[in-house]
Amino acid sequence: MISIVIIGTGNVAQHLALAFAKTKDVEVIQLFSRSEKNICKGIAPEKFIHKYDEIKEADVYIIAVSDIAINEVSNLIPYENKLVVHTSGSVSLDELNAKNRKGVFYPLQTFSKGKEINFSEVPICLEAQNEKDYEFLEKIAKSISTKTFSISSNQRKSLHVAAVFVCNFVNHLYELGNQVCQENQIPFEILQPLIKETASKIEILPPKLAQTGPAIRRDTVTINSHLNTLKDENKKEIYKILTKSIIDNVEKL
Amino acid sequence: MISIVIIGTGNVAQHLALAFAKTKDVEVIQLFSRSEKNICKGIAPEKFIHKYDEIKEADVYIIAVSDIAINEVSNLIPYENKLVVHTSGSVSLDELNAKNRKGVFYPLQTFSKGKEINFSEVPICLEAQNEKDYEFLEKIAKSISTKTFSISSNQRKSLHVAAVFVCNFVNHLYELGNQVCQENQIPFEILQPLIKETASKIEILPPKLAQTGPAIRRDTVTINSHLNTLKDENKKEIYKILTKSIIDNVEKL
Repeated sequence: MISIVIIGTGNVAQHLALAFAKTKDVEVIQLFSRSEKNICKGIAPEKFIHKYDEIKEADVYIIAVSDIAINEVSNLIPYENKLVVHTSGSVSLDELNAKNRKGVFYPLQTFSKGKEINFSEVPICLEAQNEKDYEFLEKIAKSISTKTFSISSNQRKSLHVAAVFVCNFVNHLYELGNQVCQENQIPFEILQPLIKETASKIEILPPKLAQTGPAIRRDTVTINSHLNTLKDENKKEIYKILTKSIIDNVEKL
Repeated sequence: MISIVIIGTGNVAQHLALAFAKTKDVEVIQLFSRSEKNICKGIAPEKFIHKYDEIKEADVYIIAVSDIAINEVSNLIPYENKLVVHTSGSVSLDELNAKNRKGVFYPLQTFSKGKEINFSEVPICLEAQNEKDYEFLEKIAKSISTKTFSISSNQRKSLHVAAVFVCNFVNHLYELGNQVCQENQIPFEILQPLIKETASKIEILPPKLAQTGPAIRRDTVTINSHLNTLKDENKKEIYKILTKSIIDNVEKL
């Protein structure tokens, strides 16, 4: 049985703990929480610890805390020459304390409280300092997911930027669309099939070929009519810059 | 049996013709195509006509052509006091010739050649000049979709803008994410589960509450690191404006 200690009790920590709880060969033996309140459903309360000197020996320590706390937490692990990994998309391997063997175990997904995740489809981006540790991380990643990728710290930095574009910024465009609907007494649900189809189309077509709409058609009549319809300066500006970017991009075809 | 003539053979016309072909009570008796080449799979070739004076009498004429051609096509229909509708998101009902009863039959979806659509989930936005025509349009819409909505010309204009945000602009952000991946030898498929989850999350949470990422956390360390990672000025500018918009929007909570 592979033993894991998870440090942190945020969204990533909780989703990971629940995913490992369903495996046969991997056991989360402890979850470290700074506060005594952060206890999550589905995990036995006696597994929660709150002091660093209570941390047991384990095969791997997974630090799933906010980016700025990763270095400090890695300093406080009371062991040496153990495998210690973090789960962040934007923090380098080097941020971990060198007294232990370093690694990264980055599940590339958007985790929210109250929304269950099918972990088997979550890509897990792995990095380690040597092949043996990499293979070990791959083994535990494969116990919860069918998708594992070897991604270096440099690649991960860019991947995280790409994820901001396709997830965080996309969600904000949903919010702006929602606002336009609300201002005109249109139910937002009317847009949901379109949103779903837009997301699933790029599994078949590359995004450049999937592009539709007035910008790609250079339909300036519709573009100007849309800009006149929009009252809010911020939405107008976003409309203009993204329309221009679509037009400039097609010229590079 | 309700009879329909569809004018146009683009994506919307073809997808509509194929959807009606599966119904019991509605028949597309003719498809008008300017060119003799635009014949689509799954529709009997003898149904295609190429001259306006060959257009038969029907219960409804669906004009599914480009926005700028709608008015002209509506002038050329060789009947009066018939129900004539267009399928455009951005053209007013008034663009149709007044010799016939006007209506709108706007399927809100992104249609691409070679990507089949489950029409039963496509919202159809309807408008008519009187209740009887509206009910008739609702009847034929319900023969192919479970989702029909009464949307005025004014609402439809805004709805089309919202659709540009949540579909066309979103797809362009997928393309920008794809470019970042390609530049760093990262397979784009690694982002697809994230894209899917981002789209499906807003069926449960309103987009404002589903927002994650560095901007909503005001994580300026990560934001600045991302801006340094991005080489391309266009991507930098889009990153900045969307980050600012997310931060400004949360302040309105």
